[in-house]
Amino acid sequence: VHDDMPCMDNDVLRRGKPTVHVKFGEAQALLAGDALQALAFELLTPEDSTVSAAMQTALCRMLAQAAGSRGMAGGQAIDLASVGQPISSAQLHDMHRLKTGALLQASVLMGAACGRPSAAAQQALSDYGASIGLAFQVVDDVLDVTADSGTLGKTAGKDAAQDKPTFVSLMGLRVSQNYAQELLSQSQASLRAGGLHNTAALQALAEMLVNRGF
Amino acid sequence: VHDDMPCMDNDVLRRGKPTVHVKFGEAQALLAGDALQALAFELLTPEDSTVSAAMQTALCRMLAQAAGSRGMAGGQAIDLASVGQPISSAQLHDMHRLKTGALLQASVLMGAACGRPSAAAQQALSDYGASIGLAFQVVDDVLDVTADSGTLGKTAGKDAAQDKPTFVSLMGLRVSQNYAQELLSQSQASLRAGGLHNTAALQALAEMLVNRGF
Repeated sequence: VHDDMPCMDNDVLRRGKPTVHVKFGEAQALLAGDALQALAFELLTPEDSTVSAAMQTALCRMLAQAAGSRGMAGGQAIDLASVGQPISSAQLHDMHRLKTGALLQASVLMGAACGRPSAAAQQALSDYGASIGLAFQVVDDVLDVTADSGTLGKTAGKDAAQDKPTFVSLMGLRVSQNYAQELLSQSQASLRAGGLHNTAALQALAEMLVNRGF
Repeated sequence: VHDDMPCMDNDVLRRGKPTVHVKFGEAQALLAGDALQALAFELLTPEDSTVSAAMQTALCRMLAQAAGSRGMAGGQAIDLASVGQPISSAQLHDMHRLKTGALLQASVLMGAACGRPSAAAQQALSDYGASIGLAFQVVDDVLDVTADSGTLGKTAGKDAAQDKPTFVSLMGLRVSQNYAQELLSQSQASLRAGGLHNTAALQALAEMLVNRGF
């Protein structure tokens, strides 16, 4: 909700529908985002739960770190400061590791934590999360160039219009598309390396993220 | 930080200094507010702590509920929807119970929870928190009329300019001033009723909130 606001990405469409600030005004969009962030922590700490208090606390900490200044919000701040600036591939990777990667990786690791994984499984899932987080952003940059707004459900072509550094602007369209497939392979190699069972859903998620058209 | 943004109260001064969006831009202000909310939950869930996991979980839940849609964010949404609308005294109280009261009361009750208070002490502190939360808002409305921007550290006279319903617009200046003193007395009566010891700091806080000039 916040990401679509005029001072951020300034987008009027999300999943093919008007964004919250377009439909309800900027002030209500700002408050809705704030309330939803609070709701995430409320949902993680129900009064009666089969999840132990120690686990609830760990989950809150993981989410807070991934969302905050050393995670999504910090990465987004670097992104905004980078508009119109020359940026290296290493800097672009660092930025997206925070902006998109941290929260996506946290979603994997929070689920994993509840299963009390072995160190090897934990590392494998962490690597998997990092790969799909980065892949998601590479594909996002590709689709901004290749898809139309109707398919995308949000306004296409905005990165170039806003002079934002992207994987496509840095390494070109074809190399970016190959890179996304390489990250998909890496994510699946990570799952195999961890000696994990029942990884079909995680494999399918990675494929869905990389081979999506929206 | 969010409250000062153009789509909300649109204020350029806070504690006599330029607000965050004035100094760093709206996008960075939006992100700073988001990151600070996440930081609150991170600080409540440190990895090594003398506070038990069960208590950390309870504190996260209290803060999340007080900040979210049934607390501050929800109250602020009602406030924005009320601009230019006729509003009753009961509705104004309900709005401020959420907008200002919930988080101030939570700050008292979160501290209280760590001391594992008796039911009577818990109720007394809850009443105290409700009284000072409401008093804070009544005084805020009074000062918007009586103080100048230099003393206030933020722009004075904005409520009337924005046609916002306030205690002053509803019950007049003198009655509002008396009401603030009455709430101060109530807060101190609550502390006495709970059989609490060492309440000097809480009493001083209430006096400071009500008799402030800023």
